[in-house]
Amino acid sequence: MIPPNSHIGIVGYGNVGSHLSQILANNPGVELSVYNRSSRDQQQSFPNVQWVQHLGELASASTIILSVSDDAIETVAKELRLQLHSNPLVCHTAGSVESDVLAPYFKRYGVLYPLQTFSIHKPLRDWEFPVFITASSKEIRENLRQLADWISPHVHEIDDQQRLALHIAAVFVCNYTNILYTVGQKICQDHHLDFKYLIPLIDETAEKLHSLSPKEAQTGPAIRGDREVLMKHMAFLQNYDADLMDLYQKFASLVH
Amino acid sequence: MIPPNSHIGIVGYGNVGSHLSQILANNPGVELSVYNRSSRDQQQSFPNVQWVQHLGELASASTIILSVSDDAIETVAKELRLQLHSNPLVCHTAGSVESDVLAPYFKRYGVLYPLQTFSIHKPLRDWEFPVFITASSKEIRENLRQLADWISPHVHEIDDQQRLALHIAAVFVCNYTNILYTVGQKICQDHHLDFKYLIPLIDETAEKLHSLSPKEAQTGPAIRGDREVLMKHMAFLQNYDADLMDLYQKFASLVH
Repeated sequence: MIPPNSHIGIVGYGNVGSHLSQILANNPGVELSVYNRSSRDQQQSFPNVQWVQHLGELASASTIILSVSDDAIETVAKELRLQLHSNPLVCHTAGSVESDVLAPYFKRYGVLYPLQTFSIHKPLRDWEFPVFITASSKEIRENLRQLADWISPHVHEIDDQQRLALHIAAVFVCNYTNILYTVGQKICQDHHLDFKYLIPLIDETAEKLHSLSPKEAQTGPAIRGDREVLMKHMAFLQNYDADLMDLYQKFASLVH
Repeated sequence: MIPPNSHIGIVGYGNVGSHLSQILANNPGVELSVYNRSSRDQQQSFPNVQWVQHLGELASASTIILSVSDDAIETVAKELRLQLHSNPLVCHTAGSVESDVLAPYFKRYGVLYPLQTFSIHKPLRDWEFPVFITASSKEIRENLRQLADWISPHVHEIDDQQRLALHIAAVFVCNYTNILYTVGQKICQDHHLDFKYLIPLIDETAEKLHSLSPKEAQTGPAIRGDREVLMKHMAFLQNYDADLMDLYQKFASLVH
């Protein structure tokens, strides 16, 4: 169990680390130490946050969260092991990296995966996103759950394969959805239309999922089987952007 | 100019017509007559709404909105011309149909295009969506603007080509975004994960556009150039669903 006054270390202050820091710092019981490779983004300070210059300064942390890029997790874990003589619980936050990547370096390890799209300077709409934990033992599971409870009211346990599936689902509904927003913006710009016109539509498209399933929410020419409109759109895109025509066609074929 | 007490006719009570009816009926100055081919959805009644059984009963309407499917617009316009001896302003609501499709039947015609995703039984989050008008003369433009002002605080004039571009942009950011939500749901279901886990992510992805451009908002493995994660996701999808692997790859190539 994490004691009521917990000392948590965070390594990495990018999109994920910055938001986790802000949320954790909001808990009066948490003492937070943050290490970032570059000191570029360390201007921001929160109550209860201590910036450290060396990984060794995290020795008194009972839990350390590695919110670094996926390919840096192992390097940082190795370096942390060299610098620390303590035995903290160490977890990473990556969707698509197995939990036992940390096994060679720490006895107590796991994954704490916050399912959200974080941009460092964009405050979140709310803190209601779910957090998923993966642990190899009951004791670690309980420790991770305590930690996750500081971050979110919605904590679930999943295994590595489920987390990978969830990450891929997230890439589709978030990263690739945002690419579609970029496509919308490009079309608007090229036709002297304000991208802001599309915002209420984008909001309502997301909002619908609070009361309808995606299948129930589907509208548009493809689901109506409106071949004439589909052909008009293809003809327009053919003269405009071949990549977008391919993409349009691919999606039209997925609607059923 | 539409007189302060306007009689508006609506032909078609599907996803678009039902919502326009509800919004227009909310204006005390509007008298509304609605015709629907089938009477299936006519149970719902609003103040100021009169259901009619024949197109000829719309004779006293000063403006008639055709919110029927794209391929029915011309047939309905022709039928309406035969049934009416009046000279109403007639407009359709389709994104990808030229305004002059109505020219052979009515002297005063135009387009009133509400940019939103309407599902008949899903109340809208709000009525802040924009409405776009297309008119062939100053007088019609003013009439259409008066009508549009009943529906939305955000009325803009565009031409046929811009409306087509806007419709295509809408297909990408709404209809195809919703397909990505369907993909997310399928992946969740197949891996014993609740689709609801993705809702806060979907909400935040849309919400970001209120303060960031889509390019600024982009996150995920493709924009980070994280080849290792991309390869893991492709390997997963190869064993899971070839169509989704194609789609994933297509999007990954569009991120730059």
